[in-house]
Amino acid sequence: MKLATLPAPGPDGRLVIVSRDLTRAVPAQPIAATLQDALDRWAEVEPALRRSADALEAGSPEGEIPFDPAAALAPLPRAWQWLDGSAYPSHGALMQKALGHEPIETDRPLMYQGLSHQFLAPTEDVALPNEGDGIDFEGEFGVITDAVPMGVSAPAARGHIRLIVQINDWSLRALAPAEFRTGFGFVQAKPACSMAPVAVTPDDLGEDWRDARVHLPLHVWWNGELFGRPDGGAMAFGFDELVAHAARTRGLCAGTVIGSGTVSNETYREVGSTCIAERRGLETVDHGAPTTSFMRFGDTVRMQAGRPGGAHPFGRIDQRVVGANPG
Amino acid sequence: MKLATLPAPGPDGRLVIVSRDLTRAVPAQPIAATLQDALDRWAEVEPALRRSADALEAGSPEGEIPFDPAAALAPLPRAWQWLDGSAYPSHGALMQKALGHEPIETDRPLMYQGLSHQFLAPTEDVALPNEGDGIDFEGEFGVITDAVPMGVSAPAARGHIRLIVQINDWSLRALAPAEFRTGFGFVQAKPACSMAPVAVTPDDLGEDWRDARVHLPLHVWWNGELFGRPDGGAMAFGFDELVAHAARTRGLCAGTVIGSGTVSNETYREVGSTCIAERRGLETVDHGAPTTSFMRFGDTVRMQAGRPGGAHPFGRIDQRVVGANPG
Repeated sequence: MKLATLPAPGPDGRLVIVSRDLTRAVPAQPIAATLQDALDRWAEVEPALRRSADALEAGSPEGEIPFDPAAALAPLPRAWQWLDGSAYPSHGALMQKALGHEPIETDRPLMYQGLSHQFLAPTEDVALPNEGDGIDFEGEFGVITDAVPMGVSAPAARGHIRLIVQINDWSLRALAPAEFRTGFGFVQAKPACSMAPVAVTPDDLGEDWRDARVHLPLHVWWNGELFGRPDGGAMAFGFDELVAHAARTRGLCAGTVIGSGTVSNETYREVGSTCIAERRGLETVDHGAPTTSFMRFGDTVRMQAGRPGGAHPFGRIDQRVVGANPG
Repeated sequence: MKLATLPAPGPDGRLVIVSRDLTRAVPAQPIAATLQDALDRWAEVEPALRRSADALEAGSPEGEIPFDPAAALAPLPRAWQWLDGSAYPSHGALMQKALGHEPIETDRPLMYQGLSHQFLAPTEDVALPNEGDGIDFEGEFGVITDAVPMGVSAPAARGHIRLIVQINDWSLRALAPAEFRTGFGFVQAKPACSMAPVAVTPDDLGEDWRDARVHLPLHVWWNGELFGRPDGGAMAFGFDELVAHAARTRGLCAGTVIGSGTVSNETYREVGSTCIAERRGLETVDHGAPTTSFMRFGDTVRMQAGRPGGAHPFGRIDQRVVGANPG
């Protein structure tokens, strides 16, 4: 099942059920008003949502509308909680080597809590204050949970993963080192993320969802040029383990979004990267200094998961960075 | 003006306006349903709320009810964003000395984003999974903003501070060092915080609110024994600077809560502390090792701001730690 959120009065938009080919939709009302509403009552509403999805796939149900992924909001335009992991070991290892960090302990997941009161729409301009802040994209996958009890095990956590999403975790690299050194995590270095237009249930991915990982390449184009296409399956910890890690001392509210961290493969020399920092890290390792600059105002980034010739289950992120007006 | 939230169907309770002596209240409806609702429309609703507050102070307006602070929820039972500072330099300096850390750069505020989907009620039991996690309280002050534009200056930020609250930032000290070392900040080490029952507008504190700081002692009792009474005014950065720091690369949504960090004074040997970690740090400095243990299940903590014989503007936090049932 595929879900999306269309603009409507109020910050949370309105929930629609989307066809597998992303061309048609039916309103989810009166089953659920918004995605948060559906997640708050998932067990109750899921059967009816799936019946609507089946009817949409089977024909042209009453209320059907054309679906334009570029007009959608983020599936969850705001969330009560966003916890972002960093689960691809090749990313961490390369960044440590390039930046001369001490290795970070990696026998447990890395995770920080980030800005969740806004997830940008997939084609919305990204307004940032300063070109000198080291503007970078980070292609990620994420999951959205229903309510998860404190202390959940990883196997039990898997059943709480209700939806899978594709995320661009915008990062300001010039601001990150000072925040990283404090030990307090990232605030200024991590403005609002963006989400691809369509959230999918795990079964929608078929065999591409296994071991609680998304086994699909994530293609990233920067200013129209392919920048990377690493596979999402290379996580050291599956999303089930990330959910259990997050819930060690807290219950997770329904609508918690948990991110994979920058998708990265050991073969980054071949498949490229989903963030500029990784390419710069490689340049530093090879030549002693980076040669690729971060993004400029006016630059665009496009992200889309899927195999060449295959489906793109989440639709695509296609955004432009612009200068923000000072407050 | 003083505001509180009483239990009602739904997670956000219902907003009431509270008398200065904390004994009486009037419903804020139909002006605003909840505190989040009021903050979303602050400029529009504030005059009417203040008229109700004036009527309550002047006599017995229609709809008046007795107010029991112990029956209140947190003023904001959940928030879209909680950013906690660490703005008392004596706390940081002592912890570094005791733990043998490198000094953290302190020419800019320290801040992490924490769990905000739940703020515990002031008298609610605090359910935590494990006595061995180093259960500790942290007495803090906090502010709640309306919508703050990205890039706001500290002077302009002051006008966005709509309410002041008193917070217990629960901490699990045994889990903090591993998270601190990652640079990613605190997830497992920081479960849900608690809030004292009454949120106040800056003018309610009169001369005790100046330089964007709360110049009142915060009294903390652990198992009925006075543990500390440091003054809130000793912040290295005022709340205006903390708000501006938070808003450097993001707009803040209405209802953002920003914390001071553990209230601490240079005179901690005389006035005590608002967290156990600080006392243990002092014991380590003096004797090479801590002698005070962290909290046990069944322990209580009470926190109340105000001068002896004076008012207690926020009411009090009075909680017991209990073992959580595993998920």
